Amino acid sequence: MKHTLSVYVRNRSGVLSRVAGLFSGRGYNIDSLCVAETNEPGYSLMTIVVNGNDAVIEQINKQLNKLIDVVKVITHSGDEIVVRELMLVKINATAQTRSEIVQITNIFRGHIVDLSPKSLIVEIYGTNEKLMAALEMFAPFGIKDIVRTGSIAMTR
Amino acid sequence: MKHTLSVYVRNRSGVLSRVAGLFSGRGYNIDSLCVAETNEPGYSLMTIVVNGNDAVIEQINKQLNKLIDVVKVITHSGDEIVVRELMLVKINATAQTRSEIVQITNIFRGHIVDLSPKSLIVEIYGTNEKLMAALEMFAPFGIKDIVRTGSIAMTR
Repeated sequence: MKHTLSVYVRNRSGVLSRVAGLFSGRGYNIDSLCVAETNEPGYSLMTIVVNGNDAVIEQINKQLNKLIDVVKVITHSGDEIVVRELMLVKINATAQTRSEIVQITNIFRGHIVDLSPKSLIVEIYGTNEKLMAALEMFAPFGIKDIVRTGSIAMTR
Repeated sequence: MKHTLSVYVRNRSGVLSRVAGLFSGRGYNIDSLCVAETNEPGYSLMTIVVNGNDAVIEQINKQLNKLIDVVKVITHSGDEIVVRELMLVKINATAQTRSEIVQITNIFRGHIVDLSPKSLIVEIYGTNEKLMAALEMFAPFGIKDIVRTGSIAMTR
């Protein structure tokens, strides 16, 4: 089962490595991780999506709280959060297929951000499920490249 | 100067910790980091934004290439890339201020994703500069929470 954790940390040298090491040292698999600044100078927020049962997540939470530069850990559950992810996709596109790709992009409320004679880049954001659905629609044209941010989460 | 690196890695236990450790061990400051799956099973892509001069970046690149699970490193430069970031912002909102917040959100092509009597959550994506500009506009209402993905990049 997938769990989303928000980990508030001090911007100290090595904190990312220590947090990541805590997961890998125990064989926990991180699905995605985002680290970026918060509105408080000197602090960052890591959003970590990890696979594991509830007992594993509780254990991770305890271990994280023992790290000196970890300020706060929130383990999100259920529908009480907004989860979003952003993706850039480079798709093969010719004059013949371009309009269909644009149509699909519009349906997913995405945007075309770059265009070349043989390909285009689409940006799409939303839930993980929405991104996967979009990729399925784009697959027949030939996907050249995908870059994803991984998920971020906020309590409603 | 800010640099953006795309680091393709095998999904092996500890790879994230080793990559992060390489930066912190040398005192390089990571501004943001995104890790997520690619379209190739078993491989992940890390997008790392780091501060440093060109010599430092070249040194990091060499060190990264020495790590066994690092498959490819791309150091992006200049205008040849599309850079995007996603942000969720929870803003204080009353019946009086709500319409102004909605108006600002529309100008930044964002969306309201959640609404409560005292606050709302806005999602905005774009370049780092666009996100900072939006935050500046929202600040007077009172920002309760910010979650950012950090930047991802794709070659045009």
